[in-house]
Amino acid sequence: MSAHDLDGAVDPHGDVSVSELALAAELAGSGERAASADIAEYALWLGDDALILSQQLGAWITYAPELEEDIALGNIALDLLGHARSFLRYAGSWDGRTEDDLAYFRDEEEFRSAWLFEQPNGDFAQTIARQLIASTYLLELYSALRASTDPTFAAIAEKAVKEVDYHRDHAVQWTLRLAGGTDESRSRVVRAFTDVWPYAAELFRDEELIDRLGDAAVRPSSLRPGFDAVIEAVFAEAELEIPAVSTSSGGGRHGSHATPLGHLLTEMQVLARKHPGATW
Amino acid sequence: MSAHDLDGAVDPHGDVSVSELALAAELAGSGERAASADIAEYALWLGDDALILSQQLGAWITYAPELEEDIALGNIALDLLGHARSFLRYAGSWDGRTEDDLAYFRDEEEFRSAWLFEQPNGDFAQTIARQLIASTYLLELYSALRASTDPTFAAIAEKAVKEVDYHRDHAVQWTLRLAGGTDESRSRVVRAFTDVWPYAAELFRDEELIDRLGDAAVRPSSLRPGFDAVIEAVFAEAELEIPAVSTSSGGGRHGSHATPLGHLLTEMQVLARKHPGATW
Repeated sequence: MSAHDLDGAVDPHGDVSVSELALAAELAGSGERAASADIAEYALWLGDDALILSQQLGAWITYAPELEEDIALGNIALDLLGHARSFLRYAGSWDGRTEDDLAYFRDEEEFRSAWLFEQPNGDFAQTIARQLIASTYLLELYSALRASTDPTFAAIAEKAVKEVDYHRDHAVQWTLRLAGGTDESRSRVVRAFTDVWPYAAELFRDEELIDRLGDAAVRPSSLRPGFDAVIEAVFAEAELEIPAVSTSSGGGRHGSHATPLGHLLTEMQVLARKHPGATW
Repeated sequence: MSAHDLDGAVDPHGDVSVSELALAAELAGSGERAASADIAEYALWLGDDALILSQQLGAWITYAPELEEDIALGNIALDLLGHARSFLRYAGSWDGRTEDDLAYFRDEEEFRSAWLFEQPNGDFAQTIARQLIASTYLLELYSALRASTDPTFAAIAEKAVKEVDYHRDHAVQWTLRLAGGTDESRSRVVRAFTDVWPYAAELFRDEELIDRLGDAAVRPSSLRPGFDAVIEAVFAEAELEIPAVSTSSGGGRHGSHATPLGHLLTEMQVLARKHPGATW
């Protein structure tokens, strides 16, 4: 046996991974109250958004244009997966499903993620354009959700907001770098924002569920002014213009999805479904 | 503008990602001495081992059997990529190449990774068997390398040893869980160790380079007793037997590689090679 005790290892990734223990403590902090049906539905919105974006970004881990970027996108993907687990676990407390049940054994029409998150990685510029919109939205959302009257949402948001703040900074820096780079990188980033901009609107659409939840949730439309202010500031600095494109209908909150989600779910779920109930 | 200052974001991943700044400081700590040819070659051994294993594990990020496992394997992949960057950057200080030059613009026969690391992910049990051998070896290696007379190697090892300690604990826990699980999981883990065991021997083979480097490097054969003690303890606990299989010839330290590496390099390098010199 070497000097290293087999039992002595400490997980140095406390800021990224969410251990069963930490999740249990998070729920305990809220008096271990199970989610209501409406709370669970809202937790699925937030959890699915994070889960789908995480899976998309994870695919970059072996393809990014720089080793440093591999690490950055990989870290962002893992942060988001941590947020997804917290929300899904809370959602499952309503009807006794686990986070893995919810991630691996729901069908496409049961996912509540907005269409933005299932847009394809495309080239690196498209990933960054999606990231700028996603992280700007998520930072506004989690900032506000810290004041939720639901203590579990408030606790998850408190933790997530710090990480999403870094994600937005990453997306802003890359947007400026691509827009101010070569003619090629600039034309790609212009096209990328044109492609992805139609999917921003769905993020700010109010639904009946939000009315029922009151101050436990954040009203999507209330986040739009803060989002616009940030995007306008970044676009001004990057000398980009808000794309003059029409708005996508979206429909993710009701289980209607675009083509790429099916393929992504197949990849994500195949292993768990092949061995249901097994540890693998 | 929201309350979050665009310029105020702090990277919360200091323990995982290695910023340019930190790498520069690491080299500065060694008096900014550039590597010699032999030191650079040894740095390639260590850097390529970490790089190839990192790329393999990264492919699990959307396929692991549990969300928690997605995060764990993703974190391990990012840790290894951090180690790879440190070693490759140091290797490049010899002839002025960057870490990205070394990762993306070398051909297969220029890679110095041992064959263990290019073995396929296979099923989850095969990944865990490869991880147990790899992390047990790396922990012994980095523990010893902290005493290197080369201050850059000593500094990289000091940082890496803590992370690899966690990687080994992860692999040990999964080995015990699979071996003590269902008949199916046990038979898979037995087969996995049989498949991967032949590649352990190459890790402990001394080469002329090691003689020339003296106390700057760690003699591979000196690590074998510590490695064997750990593996025997884990196998005893898991009621597994050391596979009675012959030893692979290996040859990675001289640029001879097995089939999977070519495919892995194609995937890893395609984007950077398509846009040489561009930021993407």
